[in-house]
Amino acid sequence: MIDLRSDTVTKPTVEMRQAAFEAEVGDDVYGEDPTVTRLEEEAAKVLGKEAALFVTSGTQGNQIAVLTHTRPGNEIILEENSHIFYYESGAVAALAGVQTRTLPGVKGAMDPEVVEEAVRAEDQHFPETGLICVENTHNRAGGAILSPENMEAIYSVACRNQVPVHVDGARLFNAAAGIGRDVKEFTKHCDTVQVCLSKGLGAPVGSIIAGDRKFIQRARKWRKRLGGGLRQVGMIAAPGLVALTTMRERLIEDHEKAAVLKEALQNSKGISVINDVDTNIVVADVQGTGLSSKEYVELLKEKGILIGGFGAETVRFTTHYDVSMEDIRKTAIILKSL
Amino acid sequence: MIDLRSDTVTKPTVEMRQAAFEAEVGDDVYGEDPTVTRLEEEAAKVLGKEAALFVTSGTQGNQIAVLTHTRPGNEIILEENSHIFYYESGAVAALAGVQTRTLPGVKGAMDPEVVEEAVRAEDQHFPETGLICVENTHNRAGGAILSPENMEAIYSVACRNQVPVHVDGARLFNAAAGIGRDVKEFTKHCDTVQVCLSKGLGAPVGSIIAGDRKFIQRARKWRKRLGGGLRQVGMIAAPGLVALTTMRERLIEDHEKAAVLKEALQNSKGISVINDVDTNIVVADVQGTGLSSKEYVELLKEKGILIGGFGAETVRFTTHYDVSMEDIRKTAIILKSL
Amino acid sequence: MIDLRSDTVTKPTVEMRQAAFEAEVGDDVYGEDPTVTRLEEEAAKVLGKEAALFVTSGTQGNQIAVLTHTRPGNEIILEENSHIFYYESGAVAALAGVQTRTLPGVKGAMDPEVVEEAVRAEDQHFPETGLICVENTHNRAGGAILSPENMEAIYSVACRNQVPVHVDGARLFNAAAGIGRDVKEFTKHCDTVQVCLSKGLGAPVGSIIAGDRKFIQRARKWRKRLGGGLRQVGMIAAPGLVALTTMRERLIEDHEKAAVLKEALQNSKGISVINDVDTNIVVADVQGTGLSSKEYVELLKEKGILIGGFGAETVRFTTHYDVSMEDIRKTAIILKSL
Amino acid sequence: MIDLRSDTVTKPTVEMRQAAFEAEVGDDVYGEDPTVTRLEEEAAKVLGKEAALFVTSGTQGNQIAVLTHTRPGNEIILEENSHIFYYESGAVAALAGVQTRTLPGVKGAMDPEVVEEAVRAEDQHFPETGLICVENTHNRAGGAILSPENMEAIYSVACRNQVPVHVDGARLFNAAAGIGRDVKEFTKHCDTVQVCLSKGLGAPVGSIIAGDRKFIQRARKWRKRLGGGLRQVGMIAAPGLVALTTMRERLIEDHEKAAVLKEALQNSKGISVINDVDTNIVVADVQGTGLSSKEYVELLKEKGILIGGFGAETVRFTTHYDVSMEDIRKTAIILKSL
Repeated sequence: MIDLRSDTVTKPTVEMRQAAFEAEVGDDVYGEDPTVTRLEEEAAKVLGKEAALFVTSGTQGNQIAVLTHTRPGNEIILEENSHIFYYESGAVAALAGVQTRTLPGVKGAMDPEVVEEAVRAEDQHFPETGLICVENTHNRAGGAILSPENMEAIYSVACRNQVPVHVDGARLFNAAAGIGRDVKEFTKHCDTVQVCLSKGLGAPVGSIIAGDRKFIQRARKWRKRLGGGLRQVGMIAAPGLVALTTMRERLIEDHEKAAVLKEALQNSKGISVINDVDTNIVVADVQGTGLSSKEYVELLKEKGILIGGFGAETVRFTTHYDVSMEDIRKTAIILKSL
Repeated sequence: MIDLRSDTVTKPTVEMRQAAFEAEVGDDVYGEDPTVTRLEEEAAKVLGKEAALFVTSGTQGNQIAVLTHTRPGNEIILEENSHIFYYESGAVAALAGVQTRTLPGVKGAMDPEVVEEAVRAEDQHFPETGLICVENTHNRAGGAILSPENMEAIYSVACRNQVPVHVDGARLFNAAAGIGRDVKEFTKHCDTVQVCLSKGLGAPVGSIIAGDRKFIQRARKWRKRLGGGLRQVGMIAAPGLVALTTMRERLIEDHEKAAVLKEALQNSKGISVINDVDTNIVVADVQGTGLSSKEYVELLKEKGILIGGFGAETVRFTTHYDVSMEDIRKTAIILKSL
Repeated sequence: MIDLRSDTVTKPTVEMRQAAFEAEVGDDVYGEDPTVTRLEEEAAKVLGKEAALFVTSGTQGNQIAVLTHTRPGNEIILEENSHIFYYESGAVAALAGVQTRTLPGVKGAMDPEVVEEAVRAEDQHFPETGLICVENTHNRAGGAILSPENMEAIYSVACRNQVPVHVDGARLFNAAAGIGRDVKEFTKHCDTVQVCLSKGLGAPVGSIIAGDRKFIQRARKWRKRLGGGLRQVGMIAAPGLVALTTMRERLIEDHEKAAVLKEALQNSKGISVINDVDTNIVVADVQGTGLSSKEYVELLKEKGILIGGFGAETVRFTTHYDVSMEDIRKTAIILKSL
Repeated sequence: MIDLRSDTVTKPTVEMRQAAFEAEVGDDVYGEDPTVTRLEEEAAKVLGKEAALFVTSGTQGNQIAVLTHTRPGNEIILEENSHIFYYESGAVAALAGVQTRTLPGVKGAMDPEVVEEAVRAEDQHFPETGLICVENTHNRAGGAILSPENMEAIYSVACRNQVPVHVDGARLFNAAAGIGRDVKEFTKHCDTVQVCLSKGLGAPVGSIIAGDRKFIQRARKWRKRLGGGLRQVGMIAAPGLVALTTMRERLIEDHEKAAVLKEALQNSKGISVINDVDTNIVVADVQGTGLSSKEYVELLKEKGILIGGFGAETVRFTTHYDVSMEDIRKTAIILKSL
């Protein structure tokens, strides 16, 4: 099977497995695991922040960021299709007690002026705006890249209003690869950022949150409360370090694969690609085929291709390390033939 | 001064004060205050529900309803300008730990189909939809009345999906008066409802939540946690009972006053009325006057009229018991003269 | 019936009812109710604090104090039989998300050294100690007075550890009357305090929290979230003001009544008084009578005396304004005759 | 250095590393990781429960159990020195909103009668008792074993009162090894249990919670909210499976090592062992040496032995897989020589 459901399905490479096998470990609750320490230092450097913290998932990283930045009764501003709002089981309300103020986005990007209007004035009836969250690349917008300019403008609004900005950068390295610039061109426009080591980078497990030293220190205690304070974590950090240091450059290949799929889909009867395919995600409307998205997913499955439904009439193809360009070419031929 | 800022400014009538003075009281935490018991029984009857509970404010009533219906990690569906979302300080997230899923409304009314789409499927990534909230009349939509048909359609969606419906009916009696039908025409399409005894009904303090007996029993404990379990509450319940039993019929007069204001504003240079004025609220855009809403509010204040700003370019006039038709006529003359 | 169940059953005096009838009112959400403002200013003065806030109950006052002082994940230190822990439905955890660290007390008083040991060190595994709560008089310890010296010592521990102190002073005026000193002798040893206007002072509804201006400002928003932001609250504040200004001196009479009951109980076969009867509460062990506390309560009820069960073998008599010394003498005769 | 600070410092064995290297993996969020599935099935079998769930730490397992069993405003009963209360950063209040009712224990065991008395009656003032937690072996009681009889009696109280029981069994396999009986002799007296794969079993990371199928299904969503829903988790589950299947029998060796240490300490001047040394933990009072616990820890460090402080005057020695009997003998000689 050619599995294009998500880049989360990537399996660890032999190099990652080897790194886990050999990992120098210690008890990280005592701060004694040299591998995770190295990973955190490297991640902080890459992201241009003072400090970083290993967490077990993107959701955990985002939740810890919200818990650390805010207080119950605060409101956080975020795009209406963002992962934190849409896919994290309502955890920001359940754990941090914050209200979600969702704004519409264009290709995932919120309008900085609309963000500014959404910041609450001081009034007994209003929650205090405690955080602005940005997602880059934006998953439900089809892996869309938010420009550094958009992020800069939002950060400027945020600073003017003394509200911190957190970036859900689960696929931020895809954004950097996509525009061919350093990831710091994005991260300089935020206070904190979460990036995944799994997904495109291929690590089996793990994410990073980065910010200033004081933030990371406070985040550490929230990580403990969520049960993310681990022991010989070097066993997982080691493949994460391989992912962070060796897999970022190659993300551009995943984007090339997505471009091939896009071209094939555009030449496939009844299919229209509805996103810009900035990175490794292609979203296609299948209505013209006379099939529902569910039926279309089933049809491809019979042909040996796994993809994901993405609403009643659209489907999602996600390219990643475990699907080669050859697999993609095969897929393209099948798509055109349908 | 003619105070048109809000119907919350109404002062208790002499009859209400007399009722407080004479109120038969007891310790309601022991269930021994006959006046509040009478009020709760009367309110349940009026609203067509099994049981009712006295609470100290509309916000408290809404919060208790959300706390009683939901669990942390649930999502509640509500209109994007609703009071619970907009004006209750983020309390639903802070106290109940629920995520707010806001939908756009037309004159405050959500589209039942859009509501149905917003109900979450069963999935590990999704919060469970725990409650749908409807606001009638809708404050920020300018006192707009949601039709019983809209409420019926939403309740039908809710029942089909096994999600309860709560009505924030702070001004529900205005809706009933506005369409000239019994309030039960609305309340039969929900599980629970909150109505204010203050505002148009003129009581100094207090609201009612109503629902089935089991709900009210559980609500009682949440009221206690919020500090709303009171002692000789008959002193406040007595004016509330006067409000509930004698002031509902006269709400139609407030609507007539609003109609007069509407007519005057439509004939006032540079002003356009932007809501339908279904009930006792008139919202006007003052841009054409060359003044900001703040400046316009100031201008009227100098003329002896208090109104409220309602955004940068709009203002709100609210009629109520303490402003007579004569006051309104005076106001109309001033408005036209500006 | 002579009702000795609790001082919460006191009914408003004619003077209080008259004050409610005549109360000058306004919309307190806009800060325009002159009566509640006067009450808050007077209360701040009496309690020796910068500012005060009217709340609807002792529970609400305590909860707002905890919400304002702490953050989720904090731990609060309090006596193991304190009202906040024992009788507030777990609200501190439900609303403020704080963990309760309960310490044993001697007659309601915690040992300052034990308090100091309970303050948490800085460690990832530990909640931060966010607040110390003291209850004076102590309800479950039988209305016991905590000495100003005990409070001073605890406050000294607190200051040294940079932890604030809140006093649940629902009956703090009884403590002041009991030792014949100004209430400020207690309140100078804390950051914030809650006192009830109902109970011994006889107001139908209401409590006060007092502290510094900044605390009260932040408390105001939490009050709003709990639904305690009211409108023409002067109707309730007016009797509260009568209670605060005219009823404190007479609390000593309630203590004298309790002393009479104590003497009678000590001369009643099979009964032993188990508290010191510092104030208006007498707790008696009824085991020697061969009756359970429930049976004893029933027995007295038949004789026209209402008291409260207080565990399986003990009962509680509480004196207050609505029970005259003559009633107490009658009760004493009955008690001795049993 | 001979590291006796905690059994959490154990490093993964070569076999565990090999298992990680070779682990068959998949995306566990899709339920497609065969290794974690095998681990969960095996764990359920070993623990005698319908289903099990892999979590990243003991704290996460306990927190998920509390979140799944309870609602905010509930009270949970637990021993006053239990890990959940003492060492989990107040997370049960912060995340689950439950109040902690702590009871004194004798060697970590609560008296079933006292537990029964602590279960709350139905009353508006009381939180509902939502869960009873038991810790076995009990860490702060020095690895003390709670007898199956004690657990049975508590479970009987719990069932009679319709309150569930959760066992924090971070070291439950030590208890089973200690009394030479199957772990199910303990787990049959509870609804849910958490066991650690790290600590004595030596896995680098991970714990298991087990219970009935419905509980585990609901727990899965709370795990997701806490960020514990992982991807190719087989990489960590594989060493966990080695730990679960091959390391339980050998725990008895750690207990033998502890017995040797105990004997040595009893023959060491100024030292008295203050726990029964049921399992792998020895707690010693060092006051008689004239040293504080901190100084004593330092002294041993100079001699090449790492131990942990455990209060001002006591220290803790914990034996585990990475410290051989030969290391222990060396340590014993040093201890006696001091």
